Amino acid sequence: MLLEGRHFRLDQCSAYDVGRKAMGVNLSDIAAMAGTPRAAVVAVALPLDRAEEIARELHRGLASLGHKYGVALVGGDTNAWDGPLVVSVTLYGEAHPRGSVLRAGARPGDRIAVTGPMGGSILGRHLEPIPRLAEARSLQDAGVPRAMIDISDGLASDLGHILKESGGLGATLEVSRIPIHRDAYRLAETTGRPPLEHALTDGEDFELVAVLDPATRWQDWTFLTPVGTIDAEPGIRLRFPDGRIEPFTLRGFDHLAADHSRRAAP
Amino acid sequence: MLLEGRHFRLDQCSAYDVGRKAMGVNLSDIAAMAGTPRAAVVAVALPLDRAEEIARELHRGLASLGHKYGVALVGGDTNAWDGPLVVSVTLYGEAHPRGSVLRAGARPGDRIAVTGPMGGSILGRHLEPIPRLAEARSLQDAGVPRAMIDISDGLASDLGHILKESGGLGATLEVSRIPIHRDAYRLAETTGRPPLEHALTDGEDFELVAVLDPATRWQDWTFLTPVGTIDAEPGIRLRFPDGRIEPFTLRGFDHLAADHSRRAAP
Repeated sequence: MLLEGRHFRLDQCSAYDVGRKAMGVNLSDIAAMAGTPRAAVVAVALPLDRAEEIARELHRGLASLGHKYGVALVGGDTNAWDGPLVVSVTLYGEAHPRGSVLRAGARPGDRIAVTGPMGGSILGRHLEPIPRLAEARSLQDAGVPRAMIDISDGLASDLGHILKESGGLGATLEVSRIPIHRDAYRLAETTGRPPLEHALTDGEDFELVAVLDPATRWQDWTFLTPVGTIDAEPGIRLRFPDGRIEPFTLRGFDHLAADHSRRAAP
Repeated sequence: MLLEGRHFRLDQCSAYDVGRKAMGVNLSDIAAMAGTPRAAVVAVALPLDRAEEIARELHRGLASLGHKYGVALVGGDTNAWDGPLVVSVTLYGEAHPRGSVLRAGARPGDRIAVTGPMGGSILGRHLEPIPRLAEARSLQDAGVPRAMIDISDGLASDLGHILKESGGLGATLEVSRIPIHRDAYRLAETTGRPPLEHALTDGEDFELVAVLDPATRWQDWTFLTPVGTIDAEPGIRLRFPDGRIEPFTLRGFDHLAADHSRRAAP
């Protein structure tokens, strides 16, 4: 459910953008389970004063991304009201023949990989999620993901869901391996925060975090970047290039990341 | 999708009521196709100032009706915002083994029946839809409905959907057969409009309109009240007890119904 004023502002993006995003975030959720999206139902509340115009643009956005990924708009509920734009998409998918990949299933020793660079999506990418459907299916074709999730709240936060739902495990992330998006560097210039922090904590990248059997030849999947391992000990830790390991906490991040940022600078 | 201020007011009903209604209207949609509801996903936007309290009551309402009809709440999306309460329910159902009953499928000569008395739901029944799931299934077990719809906008309006989607047919309703709810009589006292008008045009009764093969022994289904027949000629007509047939139009209704009301009075 995307809410005007909370998730987007119509003076900063178009109803077409909102439609694409509403479809995209749902496609990303299906990707995270290695499913194949098939059909969508869409419920909308349209602002009365621009209802028809917004409906047309919104539909165009929903349909364009839906068409690209084989999703039919099969129904829904259209309302107009004296309130802001609300869009709720429910996406129907088909499970992979091997079954769906869940958040639960990670085990100590498993490898953690991501499908692309992260951070700074607020500079524009957050409106254009690229669902990693093909990537997820190719992984599950080989039956290698133990657990998976898409990054909507940030790598650390979403990995946390896997750790929690896998029975309270932990993880160690290799700082030098984390792919930082160029947007994270650009954003860091204005926020004054380290690019690594943006990569670890910014949301709406819509890359996948996949947890793989340690025996997996992850090199077979060129889109995967291994970033760490699952531990029995709860909590997320960062391993710095010098071998130092520090617990990851948002509060403790400033010091750690600034330190890393200084050392990592050219 | 139910919208505060548009479909309900929280000073006139509770969040529990809203939850029951949101589930009920969706159950009624599944009933109209003779399906069996199985699972629901619920997206909500909660007003920030009372988010937790409203969430709890809303969930209680959704779950109570869901439990009664075998529907599990399997997922959704919870948001809080600086706006009114919005609830969007998507209900998953299983199709009847004989297939789903659609709006399209009526033929001239078919009989039209309803599952209960109509009108005046605004006096309270609109908050407590009773989905006619068992009734619809028992009809489809025998394979007798050609088309079906639930009454959300009013008998005349919803029958109109069947007529339109069945290729532009018409219908003649027997005024003396239309079951008028006692609430329609109560409401008529305050609105000054005839109870028959309320029965034909009030929404949110959530009874079913079923179109049946004329050979159907509709007497086998005690919950059915036959109210008319499908015609090849487009439009809805009313046949009065004296045999007079008049086109049904909302504009022309005042005269016709007032006339009927006068004659029908004890």
